[in-house]
Amino acid sequence: MDNLGTLFLAELVGTAMLVLLGCGVVANVVLAKTKGNGGGWLLINFGWGLAVFAGVIVAFASGAHLNPAVTLGLVANGATEFGNGGLGVTAPVDFLTVITYIGAQLLGAFIGAIFVWLAYKQHFDDEPDAGLKLAVFSTGPAIRSYGWNLITEIIGTFVLVFVVIGFGRNGDASGLAALGALPVALLVVGIGASLGGPTGYAINPARDLGPRIAHLVLPIKGKGSSDWGYSWVPVVGPIIGGLLAGWAAIPLLPLLG
Amino acid sequence: MDNLGTLFLAELVGTAMLVLLGCGVVANVVLAKTKGNGGGWLLINFGWGLAVFAGVIVAFASGAHLNPAVTLGLVANGATEFGNGGLGVTAPVDFLTVITYIGAQLLGAFIGAIFVWLAYKQHFDDEPDAGLKLAVFSTGPAIRSYGWNLITEIIGTFVLVFVVIGFGRNGDASGLAALGALPVALLVVGIGASLGGPTGYAINPARDLGPRIAHLVLPIKGKGSSDWGYSWVPVVGPIIGGLLAGWAAIPLLPLLG
Amino acid sequence: MDNLGTLFLAELVGTAMLVLLGCGVVANVVLAKTKGNGGGWLLINFGWGLAVFAGVIVAFASGAHLNPAVTLGLVANGATEFGNGGLGVTAPVDFLTVITYIGAQLLGAFIGAIFVWLAYKQHFDDEPDAGLKLAVFSTGPAIRSYGWNLITEIIGTFVLVFVVIGFGRNGDASGLAALGALPVALLVVGIGASLGGPTGYAINPARDLGPRIAHLVLPIKGKGSSDWGYSWVPVVGPIIGGLLAGWAAIPLLPLLG
Amino acid sequence: MDNLGTLFLAELVGTAMLVLLGCGVVANVVLAKTKGNGGGWLLINFGWGLAVFAGVIVAFASGAHLNPAVTLGLVANGATEFGNGGLGVTAPVDFLTVITYIGAQLLGAFIGAIFVWLAYKQHFDDEPDAGLKLAVFSTGPAIRSYGWNLITEIIGTFVLVFVVIGFGRNGDASGLAALGALPVALLVVGIGASLGGPTGYAINPARDLGPRIAHLVLPIKGKGSSDWGYSWVPVVGPIIGGLLAGWAAIPLLPLLG
Repeated sequence: MDNLGTLFLAELVGTAMLVLLGCGVVANVVLAKTKGNGGGWLLINFGWGLAVFAGVIVAFASGAHLNPAVTLGLVANGATEFGNGGLGVTAPVDFLTVITYIGAQLLGAFIGAIFVWLAYKQHFDDEPDAGLKLAVFSTGPAIRSYGWNLITEIIGTFVLVFVVIGFGRNGDASGLAALGALPVALLVVGIGASLGGPTGYAINPARDLGPRIAHLVLPIKGKGSSDWGYSWVPVVGPIIGGLLAGWAAIPLLPLLG
Repeated sequence: MDNLGTLFLAELVGTAMLVLLGCGVVANVVLAKTKGNGGGWLLINFGWGLAVFAGVIVAFASGAHLNPAVTLGLVANGATEFGNGGLGVTAPVDFLTVITYIGAQLLGAFIGAIFVWLAYKQHFDDEPDAGLKLAVFSTGPAIRSYGWNLITEIIGTFVLVFVVIGFGRNGDASGLAALGALPVALLVVGIGASLGGPTGYAINPARDLGPRIAHLVLPIKGKGSSDWGYSWVPVVGPIIGGLLAGWAAIPLLPLLG
Repeated sequence: MDNLGTLFLAELVGTAMLVLLGCGVVANVVLAKTKGNGGGWLLINFGWGLAVFAGVIVAFASGAHLNPAVTLGLVANGATEFGNGGLGVTAPVDFLTVITYIGAQLLGAFIGAIFVWLAYKQHFDDEPDAGLKLAVFSTGPAIRSYGWNLITEIIGTFVLVFVVIGFGRNGDASGLAALGALPVALLVVGIGASLGGPTGYAINPARDLGPRIAHLVLPIKGKGSSDWGYSWVPVVGPIIGGLLAGWAAIPLLPLLG
Repeated sequence: MDNLGTLFLAELVGTAMLVLLGCGVVANVVLAKTKGNGGGWLLINFGWGLAVFAGVIVAFASGAHLNPAVTLGLVANGATEFGNGGLGVTAPVDFLTVITYIGAQLLGAFIGAIFVWLAYKQHFDDEPDAGLKLAVFSTGPAIRSYGWNLITEIIGTFVLVFVVIGFGRNGDASGLAALGALPVALLVVGIGASLGGPTGYAINPARDLGPRIAHLVLPIKGKGSSDWGYSWVPVVGPIIGGLLAGWAAIPLLPLLG
C-alpha cells in the first residue's frame, strides 16, 4: 500500500474507533434500560475522552487527526507534512492529502456509528423518544439559536486545536509511547466538562456529520428527523474554530519546538 | 521454578487481583448498606479500570494478559512468544503455553471472587435480592437476547484486543514502568463507559466464568441461580471478539513496531 | 519580541485558557438548561483540573505560573529566574518581572471570562438567579465569615504552592513533555475535592479578581452585585498562603534537586 | 540535620499532607452546607487518591511510606534500606528507623487532622450529627462486626502493600519524576472504589489513629465519642495485611528487579 493509502486507513480506523466509543457512551447514558442510564455528564465526558484515547492509539500511523478541524487547523498553522514521521509514513500537505484525511474521517465516523447501533440495537428498539435516538448519533443545541450555537462550537474547537498545537510544541505528542495519547484525551474530557453545556461539543465535523448520515440511512426503529436544519452548525463552527486556532497559534505560541 | 510455572503464577495472581477489585466495586455499588451503595456507573467503570491497573502491575512477568480473549487474540495476531522479554521469562506460543495461561486466568478469577465474598461477607448476608448477589460475581444482560448480547460482547472485546495490540505497536506497553499499566486501565474504563450498557462488559471469559463457578460453590446466604443459561455468552462472545481483533489488526494496524 | 514580552504573552494566554475552561465548567453545572446542569462537585473538580492542564500546556514558555500566589510563592522560596530554561526564554526575578507576570495573569483571566460569557450567552440570559451568574465568574463562601474563609483559602493555596515546589524538586515539572502538565492538574482536582467545600477554592487571586472585574463591566442580562465586600478574601488569602508555602518549603523540602 | 532527622521530617510532612487532603474530602462530602455535600463515593475515592499523590510528592526524601502498614510490609519483604537512594538520604532498616518512620506518620496524621478542622471550622460548628464529625477524622464500619471488619481491612491493606511492592519490581516507583506518584494514587482510588464499602478503607493505622487522637483532644463543638471500641480494628487489620503482603510478595512476585 502506498503512503496515502496507509494514512487513509489509519484515519478511517481511528475515527471509527472514536465514534464507536464516543457515541457509545451517549447511547449508554440516554437510551432506555441500559446499565449506565442517567449516568451523568462526567460519564459522558470521560467516555468521549477515552474514545479519543483509543482512536489515537490505533491511528498512530497518520498522526491521529480524526477530525477535519484538526487537519485544517494544522494546515492553517503551516504544517508541510502529515503522518507520524517516526514510522516513516508521511505525505506532503497538499489538496489530495487533505481530502484523503477528511474523507477517511467522514467514512470512519459513518462506520463507527453503525457499530454503535449494532451494540445497542435492543435499546434503540425499546427507546420511545426519537430525539434521544438522534442524540446518540449527532449533537443538538440545549437552546436553539444558530448564531450563538456557532460561537460556542467555534470557541470549543479553538481550544481543542490550539492546545493540540501546544502539545506539538511541547515535543512528545507525536511520539510513539502509548501514554502519548493521554494528553489529548484529557483535553477532550476538559472541553466537554467546560464548554459542552450549550451544544454538546461536536468540535469535529466528521464526528457529527458522519453519524448523522448513518442515522438517515440506517433502519432504526421509530427514528425521527435527522435535524438537517442544525447540521451545518457543528460542521461550520469547528472548521472556523480550527482555522482560527491554527492561525492564532503562530503568534501566540511563539516558540517553535 | 521453570518459565511456564512462573508465567502460570503471574497470570493467576494478576487475574485474582483483577477480579478482587473488579467484582469488589460491583459489590460496593449494589449490595445493601455499603458505603458506595448506588455510587453509579462511572464508579463501576473506574473500579474495573483500576482493577486492571493493579492486576497488570502484579502480573508483569507474564505480560499480563489476564484474559483468554487477549491470549487468543495475540495468537490470532501471530505472536510467537509470551511473557515479558525484559525479565527474561518467556515461553513459545504453543498449545501447552496457551492452556497454561487460560487455566491460570480461570483459577485466578475463581480465587479472586472468593476474597470479594469474604471482604463483603456481611453485606452479602444482609442483601435480600439474590439477583444482585449474582451480579457481583458475573455479568448479565440488561435486555436478554442471546444473539444481540453476543454481538455486544463481540464488539466490546474487539475494541479491547484491537487497541491492546495497538499499544504494542506504539512500543512501550510491554515496558517495565509502573505507568505502563495505565493505558490498558484507561481503555477498560472507556469500554465500560461506552459499550457496557447492554451486557455489563464481561469482555473476558475468565472474569465471568471463574466467579460464576465461585458463586455456584460458595455457601452464600440466600443465593439464587447462577444463570447458566446465559453463561456461554460472555465466554463465546469475547473469544470471537478477541480472535477477530487479532486477525483484523494484521491488515488494519499495518506498521509493525 | 523581547523575553519579558514573550513571558507576558505566555502567562496571558495560559491564564485566559485556565479561566475559560475553569469558569466554563461552573457555567455548565450551575446555569439554566445546560447539558451539564447539576453535574456535581467532581465534575467541577475535573473541569478546573483540566483547565489547569490546558493552561499549562499553552504557557510553557513562561513556566506556566498562571497565578500570582505561585509567582509570589516562588519568590519567597528564593527563585532567581523565571521562564522555562529549556526554551531559552528567561528573565531575572525582579520587581518588573513579577509585575509583568501578575499583570498578564490578571488581564488573561479577564479575557478568559469574557469568552465564557460568550460561549454560555443564552444560558446567562435564561438563568433567573443573579447569584449563580456571579458564581460562574468568582468564588463565594458557603458560610460567610471573612476570618475563617481567609484561613480556608490560606490552607488551600499553601497546599497548591508547597506541592508545586515539590514537583520542581522531583525534577521534571519544568520539562517540555505534554504529560508534564498532568501533576499540577491532578493536584488542583485534589485541592478542589478536599479543600474546596467552604469557599469554592479560589486559591488564585487572578482567577477570582479578573473575572469579577469582567462581571462588573460586561452587559450581563439580569446580573446583580459583584460582591466586592468578599472580593479581598480570595486575593489576600492566596497571597498569604503562597508566601507561607514558599518560605515553609525551604526547611521542609530540604533536598534541593 | 542527620539522615534520620530528614527521613522523620519527610514522613511527617507527607502524612500531614495525606490526611489534610484525605480527611478534607470526607469533610467536604459529609459536613453541613459545604459545596461538595453529598458528592458521592467516587468523589471521596478521588480525594483520597489525590491526597496520596500530594503526600508522596512532598515526602520524596523518605520514599513516601506515609503508612505503618507499608513500612512494616517492606520490612517483612526483606528491605534493608529505607529512603530514596537517588537523593542520597538513607537509613538501614533497624528498630530505630522503623520507629522513626511510624512515629513521624502518627504525628503527621495528627497535625494534618488539625488543619482539616481549621479549614472546615464553620461546617463542623453547623453540623448537628456528632457521628459525621467523627467520620471526617476516622473510619467506622458500615455493619459493625469486629471480626469481619478486620478481615476487610486485612484484604484492602494486602492489596495496597502487595501492589506497591509490585511497583518497585517494575522499577520506577522510586524514581524522582512527579508522575512517579501517580501509580500509587490510582491504586488508592481503586482500593477505595472496590474494597472501601464495608469499613471505609482505613488501610493505614496512622491515617486512622492520628486523627482519632486529634478528634479526642480538639475542642470540636458538639462532638461525641471517638469510638475507641472500634479503634483497634483499623490499626491491627492494616498491620496484619501489610505483613502478609510483604511475606506473600516474596514467592508470588518472584522476579526481583
